[in-house]
Amino acid sequence: MSPRPIESFDELVLGQSFEFGTVEMTRADILDFGRRFDPQPFHVDEAAAAEGPFGGLIASGLHTLSAVFGHMIESGIMAKVSLGGAGMEIAWPAPVRPGDVLRVSAVVEALAPSRSKPDRGIAKLRFTGERVSDGVKVLDVLTTVFLRR
Amino acid sequence: MSPRPIESFDELVLGQSFEFGTVEMTRADILDFGRRFDPQPFHVDEAAAAEGPFGGLIASGLHTLSAVFGHMIESGIMAKVSLGGAGMEIAWPAPVRPGDVLRVSAVVEALAPSRSKPDRGIAKLRFTGERVSDGVKVLDVLTTVFLRR
Repeated sequence: MSPRPIESFDELVLGQSFEFGTVEMTRADILDFGRRFDPQPFHVDEAAAAEGPFGGLIASGLHTLSAVFGHMIESGIMAKVSLGGAGMEIAWPAPVRPGDVLRVSAVVEALAPSRSKPDRGIAKLRFTGERVSDGVKVLDVLTTVFLRR
Repeated sequence: MSPRPIESFDELVLGQSFEFGTVEMTRADILDFGRRFDPQPFHVDEAAAAEGPFGGLIASGLHTLSAVFGHMIESGIMAKVSLGGAGMEIAWPAPVRPGDVLRVSAVVEALAPSRSKPDRGIAKLRFTGERVSDGVKVLDVLTTVFLRR
């Protein structure tokens, strides 16, 4: 299911898209991440969450981001070329609940050679998480990465 | 050190700033987060990292983000008013290395009442992580949050 690893920044094409399969957001993982990094009641306390603004437990947005990004990284697609990232613009258009399965995909939105470092290019990739059960987008991220050429 | 909890969106003032003390990025935590969510060599493999683009192990940007945000949440500042977040714009201007201690602060950059929901306002907060040893900013995040009024 995973795409083959990118060999060089120069093989990427504007509009190119990638599919990475799915990742499940389990209740245990949601509670664990929340306790460690985002201990708000709607991320860590079932009873309080039921009475809270979302009517139940939801994943920390940072957890959804980390799980979806991590799933992409684990595919190895950037393993040969990644030189790190500079920034991200993130939107969480809908909450993620225990058991949600998210489809992970990415598209190339911008490509530019680095002006200062001839060994690399700068790519803007938009990666998204969509809930498989109803097609609702729950994560939308435009990330800027440096890739070896 | 932590500021007192906010009681209502309406008490916030443009330009208001908050200090949250410091958070340490330990080697163990960097490796643990990297293995789970961002298994790139420069986050999880000491030997490969030494030969890699950063000349040593660095924290996943998602880890720095989660640790700094988590430190702010743990202060309880938003515990009485938080209704979740809608998005973030993130920059990682410099790498974070094992043992780095980061000073966490935030400033209120925008305030607007919700048009559709009278029980809440929308605040844009910029929170930052600065390395204590040299004052270098390693994380800069503009986050949009919904706060009860």
